[in-house]
Amino acid sequence: MKTIKDSVHDYIEVEDVARDLLDTAPVQRLRHVKQLGTVTLVYPSANHTRFEHSLGVYHLASRALSQLGIEGQQAERVRAAALLHDVGHGPYSHNIEELIHRHTGKYHDEVGDLLGSGAVARVLTEHGLNPDRVAALVAGEGELGQLVSGELDVDRMDYLARDAHHTGVPYGTIDHGRLVRELRFVDGDLVLAEGNVQTAESLLLARALMNPVVYSHHVARIAKGMLRRGTERLLAETDVTPERLRRMDDKDLLVALRSNDATAGYGERLSYRDLFKRAVWAEMDAVPEDLIAADHDEIRRLEDDIAAKADVDPEHVVLDVPDEPEMKETSSRVIVGGEVRRLEDQSTLVQALQAAQRDQWRLGVYAPADVQNRVGDAAVRVLGLDVAETLVSDVRPGIHATLDEFQ
Amino acid sequence: MKTIKDSVHDYIEVEDVARDLLDTAPVQRLRHVKQLGTVTLVYPSANHTRFEHSLGVYHLASRALSQLGIEGQQAERVRAAALLHDVGHGPYSHNIEELIHRHTGKYHDEVGDLLGSGAVARVLTEHGLNPDRVAALVAGEGELGQLVSGELDVDRMDYLARDAHHTGVPYGTIDHGRLVRELRFVDGDLVLAEGNVQTAESLLLARALMNPVVYSHHVARIAKGMLRRGTERLLAETDVTPERLRRMDDKDLLVALRSNDATAGYGERLSYRDLFKRAVWAEMDAVPEDLIAADHDEIRRLEDDIAAKADVDPEHVVLDVPDEPEMKETSSRVIVGGEVRRLEDQSTLVQALQAAQRDQWRLGVYAPADVQNRVGDAAVRVLGLDVAETLVSDVRPGIHATLDEFQ
Amino acid sequence: MKTIKDSVHDYIEVEDVARDLLDTAPVQRLRHVKQLGTVTLVYPSANHTRFEHSLGVYHLASRALSQLGIEGQQAERVRAAALLHDVGHGPYSHNIEELIHRHTGKYHDEVGDLLGSGAVARVLTEHGLNPDRVAALVAGEGELGQLVSGELDVDRMDYLARDAHHTGVPYGTIDHGRLVRELRFVDGDLVLAEGNVQTAESLLLARALMNPVVYSHHVARIAKGMLRRGTERLLAETDVTPERLRRMDDKDLLVALRSNDATAGYGERLSYRDLFKRAVWAEMDAVPEDLIAADHDEIRRLEDDIAAKADVDPEHVVLDVPDEPEMKETSSRVIVGGEVRRLEDQSTLVQALQAAQRDQWRLGVYAPADVQNRVGDAAVRVLGLDVAETLVSDVRPGIHATLDEFQ
Amino acid sequence: MKTIKDSVHDYIEVEDVARDLLDTAPVQRLRHVKQLGTVTLVYPSANHTRFEHSLGVYHLASRALSQLGIEGQQAERVRAAALLHDVGHGPYSHNIEELIHRHTGKYHDEVGDLLGSGAVARVLTEHGLNPDRVAALVAGEGELGQLVSGELDVDRMDYLARDAHHTGVPYGTIDHGRLVRELRFVDGDLVLAEGNVQTAESLLLARALMNPVVYSHHVARIAKGMLRRGTERLLAETDVTPERLRRMDDKDLLVALRSNDATAGYGERLSYRDLFKRAVWAEMDAVPEDLIAADHDEIRRLEDDIAAKADVDPEHVVLDVPDEPEMKETSSRVIVGGEVRRLEDQSTLVQALQAAQRDQWRLGVYAPADVQNRVGDAAVRVLGLDVAETLVSDVRPGIHATLDEFQ
Repeated sequence: MKTIKDSVHDYIEVEDVARDLLDTAPVQRLRHVKQLGTVTLVYPSANHTRFEHSLGVYHLASRALSQLGIEGQQAERVRAAALLHDVGHGPYSHNIEELIHRHTGKYHDEVGDLLGSGAVARVLTEHGLNPDRVAALVAGEGELGQLVSGELDVDRMDYLARDAHHTGVPYGTIDHGRLVRELRFVDGDLVLAEGNVQTAESLLLARALMNPVVYSHHVARIAKGMLRRGTERLLAETDVTPERLRRMDDKDLLVALRSNDATAGYGERLSYRDLFKRAVWAEMDAVPEDLIAADHDEIRRLEDDIAAKADVDPEHVVLDVPDEPEMKETSSRVIVGGEVRRLEDQSTLVQALQAAQRDQWRLGVYAPADVQNRVGDAAVRVLGLDVAETLVSDVRPGIHATLDEFQ
Repeated sequence: MKTIKDSVHDYIEVEDVARDLLDTAPVQRLRHVKQLGTVTLVYPSANHTRFEHSLGVYHLASRALSQLGIEGQQAERVRAAALLHDVGHGPYSHNIEELIHRHTGKYHDEVGDLLGSGAVARVLTEHGLNPDRVAALVAGEGELGQLVSGELDVDRMDYLARDAHHTGVPYGTIDHGRLVRELRFVDGDLVLAEGNVQTAESLLLARALMNPVVYSHHVARIAKGMLRRGTERLLAETDVTPERLRRMDDKDLLVALRSNDATAGYGERLSYRDLFKRAVWAEMDAVPEDLIAADHDEIRRLEDDIAAKADVDPEHVVLDVPDEPEMKETSSRVIVGGEVRRLEDQSTLVQALQAAQRDQWRLGVYAPADVQNRVGDAAVRVLGLDVAETLVSDVRPGIHATLDEFQ
Repeated sequence: MKTIKDSVHDYIEVEDVARDLLDTAPVQRLRHVKQLGTVTLVYPSANHTRFEHSLGVYHLASRALSQLGIEGQQAERVRAAALLHDVGHGPYSHNIEELIHRHTGKYHDEVGDLLGSGAVARVLTEHGLNPDRVAALVAGEGELGQLVSGELDVDRMDYLARDAHHTGVPYGTIDHGRLVRELRFVDGDLVLAEGNVQTAESLLLARALMNPVVYSHHVARIAKGMLRRGTERLLAETDVTPERLRRMDDKDLLVALRSNDATAGYGERLSYRDLFKRAVWAEMDAVPEDLIAADHDEIRRLEDDIAAKADVDPEHVVLDVPDEPEMKETSSRVIVGGEVRRLEDQSTLVQALQAAQRDQWRLGVYAPADVQNRVGDAAVRVLGLDVAETLVSDVRPGIHATLDEFQ
Repeated sequence: MKTIKDSVHDYIEVEDVARDLLDTAPVQRLRHVKQLGTVTLVYPSANHTRFEHSLGVYHLASRALSQLGIEGQQAERVRAAALLHDVGHGPYSHNIEELIHRHTGKYHDEVGDLLGSGAVARVLTEHGLNPDRVAALVAGEGELGQLVSGELDVDRMDYLARDAHHTGVPYGTIDHGRLVRELRFVDGDLVLAEGNVQTAESLLLARALMNPVVYSHHVARIAKGMLRRGTERLLAETDVTPERLRRMDDKDLLVALRSNDATAGYGERLSYRDLFKRAVWAEMDAVPEDLIAADHDEIRRLEDDIAAKADVDPEHVVLDVPDEPEMKETSSRVIVGGEVRRLEDQSTLVQALQAAQRDQWRLGVYAPADVQNRVGDAAVRVLGLDVAETLVSDVRPGIHATLDEFQ
């Protein structure tokens, strides 16, 4: 048994298969992938990595399994899946996950190939575990897959607590002790025991509060937009392949961006936080419906159109259209009066949260500070935005909130 | 200047009038009044007092005043009011506030008499402050009164953080640093600056989550019901006057209960946590409308009727009908797009919270364990409850959540 | 199983005999005995009680037992002893322990009579546990007694962490997770495993740093001195017996002091923090050797002599001569290079700590502010102090440290 | 004013020159230099950087200056120096500082060239500050230089608190609020005010406890030894110049190691934590005196001799001989009885600490696991170690402490 000191869970005991997995390169690689990608440009303390998060998820999975009375090889498989659940992440985690998926067809939780070969496969097999079954758990399949990836999975319990600890933003402070303790299996569904509607709500509220302040902070989004544009060019104009990109870590990608002429500008700007500014920041009601559904190629075309109309370098316009908001956790299940109910059917609050998510949605157009206003005007016209609900350029006097510029 | 170490705000600097007020008996008395009354019977670590809370409120008021650029005697008055804002609390704080009000006509924030005489008046006058004007601030009057008692007052910023620290329940973890920093005065209204809808929501959510888990936990409510019944008897059958009761502290009241034959049973039971159990626990829909509006005399009559029908000692039935829920904070104001708006008009989430509060409302009937079932049956009939929405007696197998019995 | 939320250990699971013991009056009584007595007059947040501490000690004992592989009735007995280890404390814990011992012959860990009768005996016997054997464990007897009361007992692990949390003073922040995890039994001795010299040192250093700042803060000592004098009078001039005193809790004693004419002054002063001041504060080198060894009667005589010479009311002079310092933990055992060694033989640091304790020792004479200087002068002469090493009266300009007066 | 959220100090306000300095590349570069270098291989959560630490030092410097009543350009200069104090660090901070010094003649606090040109010089000059005078403050010169680099500097106050927060090891928990508040200037010396011997001791103890557990943990030392060897080869066998090395960040160096055939092995091993093991671990008494004083060339020769005797690849032997321990803080100054005294003259404890540091000193020889024993035997003979005080190879049964292998 190894014992590892963790800033969130204090001591984490690593046993058996997990101990051997820990020494494999795919797991150690996660030391070099930051948990929150570009969010560190907003919250300087947020340098925690997928490695320590994976240990935390492993730790909570162990406790949940023991609480649920699940033992033996079945438990061993879940613990392995918990430790391995993020090995599929490319550099900068979710920041370029869509991009990697577009080029490789794989999301971060599709890890069959990564677990099925090399050191990880060897360790799993030595411990009598089938790599495919572990990969299925990572994808959230089967009854026990819910523990690893589902509405009440230990993944979000760890990341909320950990992100709060490292950003300093208190909203993610959840009672993970209680959450783990109250898990039950009822007819194959993972649920929270009687008396825990509130416990389930608190998990959802934590994420809802962390969302705009941390995960979708506009500065993190600007940097993410620039990173995506730079990475697209890297694939287009150098010999970096999508598969190689997928297996890079944060530093590999940043060094690659900086080493190639075509992308060095992005690399420099991201390294030294010399970021574009918001030229447009628009609420959902201001945005034509088909724009929200636009695909990658269409977005690229629109960026070029805006650049042309504003008469700026096409590399200097980033259009950022987030997906429609959804909160998976709203369908988490709780026992109420002896029956399993979905949280969204039970909780007035959760219904409201779904609406609130739409209120917080914003479309962004980003550009260097010196062309910000020109790009803003062009973007409003090209995209057909309703100016009444749109913030054009963030430098208008009086609009600026205290924390806004830096954070 | 005195510097006082505090478990929540680290160092609190106490200057000028506050320093002298600190040495008066009415302020020192707050050392003996617990912040959360009977909640300590649920959360054993929650022994914090109105004294340290008052220091915390003073501290946050000082910071808010300096942030708002308010100085001189005006600021001095607010700081005094912050330190004194709770001297009007009777023993066990809010637990018997209604009872004291019924007998004396005074709520805890009506402190004109307490500030207008004795040592406090002397200190205020020496520092050139008018006791009546300080008392008005305590009551939330005037523009600056909003800082002491209003939707965005520093009182709730302190108690949420402090109650979280001492109970161990994380839901009250708010970002009071940001809240204080973002306060503004606009046309005489205390508001939060642009970009803080979320900050305002987080304050409200913290209280909404703390409510059922801490402030209205059923065990705390049972103990509170017993305390009220015992205290009524104390007034009725001993020479303790309402005015003397109002100025007692926690220990005075507990010792008084134990020293009088008529109330010794309550005193013993409260001292050693030998509490009644829930005979009935009913949702709002199960309860006839006029019962929710019933006054004290009517409640007493119903308790006697239930006792008679159940054939138990009338002292062994406590009927606990909370007021309809309301959350003052929903009308707190934030600046959005340059205009002052009420949070409830701006936030989908807050509208939902108000509905959610009703979902959590419960009527309770409490009795000793050995007559719990008899009292439950009688109560359902006497009160005309809809049994489909009512939990009768909490010992039915399968109903019990893990944390329920003790906490 | 009950689960109790604790501000230090998060969730504490209470099972079997402990669960039943929890409901007995002797354990519940600890809710009304503050952990640190008069220290709350220095650190207003330090209102934690022996009750929550006892739960914490129980929790750490459970974890230590499971780590050591000790199970069954043997473990059950230790857990019971852990929960009961402080039931022998009188009001204000250690503050008047010497006084109670002088009158009853019993220290707080001599609990044979308290465990051997009443509800506690009943519960223990029902669970097949012999009350005498549990009492022996509380007294630290036998191999397993070391866990409850010894150099490496879980008692100090809990109180250091808890006192730090509630005072806000960080020095007590120890790594109790590691301490518990590293406990071993070697030849009947409780020791720390290989590689833990530092871990043992940290425990000792934590206490050494907390001592002058918290446990022996001069304001807490002044209040303690006044409490002892008041309590002596209570025994001398009222019908309160030593045995009744021993079973009082904090509020009982404070109310008793306030209700009797002979002691009301002390009661008022302690309630409202209207304390004596230091008239003399002398280092060990300034104090004649036989004075350090003086017994209670001699101290009383000296107080009278000082009062006579200063021409003040004898009740207005308190002479406070602490015992010579000793740190039990210095003899805790650690494994070094495969052998069990005593910490003081192994650690240069620990040897120094013992000397440092002497540096911090102070004799105090306390008196009301208005006679402070007269009493100081008289005391120096009556006690034969070396004025070169003595601080006479704490109001001399330039002597006062920032935090000194209040804290 | 910018406000930045920090995990340790909550909100940090950045004004004036600091705000502009923040946007320069030399400061932003610190985002890519970890605070603790290879310590993250022991404590996975310890990924904090010199960037956030620099913000923290700036924050504490601001508070210290305001506490000391220092204003205007003088204060502005100190704040700039605080923010810039670490820009001279090479990759992996202190890990290869000696190496860089050997090749460039510069330690990390010799920053005249870095501040005297480029964006930093421009910003300083624009704000009317002389870069040379700021560089002098970074080097600890002059009265105010003591605040930035001295026995009581705010640098160590920040790093102790920050390292504790991110490693999870509680020993660094110091009371920086009090330390900053108690700073005074007396006759040009920075000292702690009366009554703070203990406060000064606590700072020293914190570092003494963090030292072996964090800063000098053997796994961090092994990785550091490998990093140094790899970096030496990088300089010897590639076109990387010492000056370029000095301005690399962590990722630049790691990628450089991996991209060159001569150093790829080190790069891989460090990336995936595939580290050498201890072949020898010897106390000071076991080591010949002249070996402790050996210079770099001599160490290299000995490594080759050991490799030859053990018949292994010379790249597979790392000899690690730390400097003799010293603790600068022991000469920090405190006011005692109105006079300024050096802590080491005043505190028995501190004298002991110096001795204790020697007890903890260890010489290490590291090698791959498969040749660990052979190398151990050879090293003992080549180095002339006293085997009685030497641990040869860490895999001997029974020697291993629980936390040892991983941490």
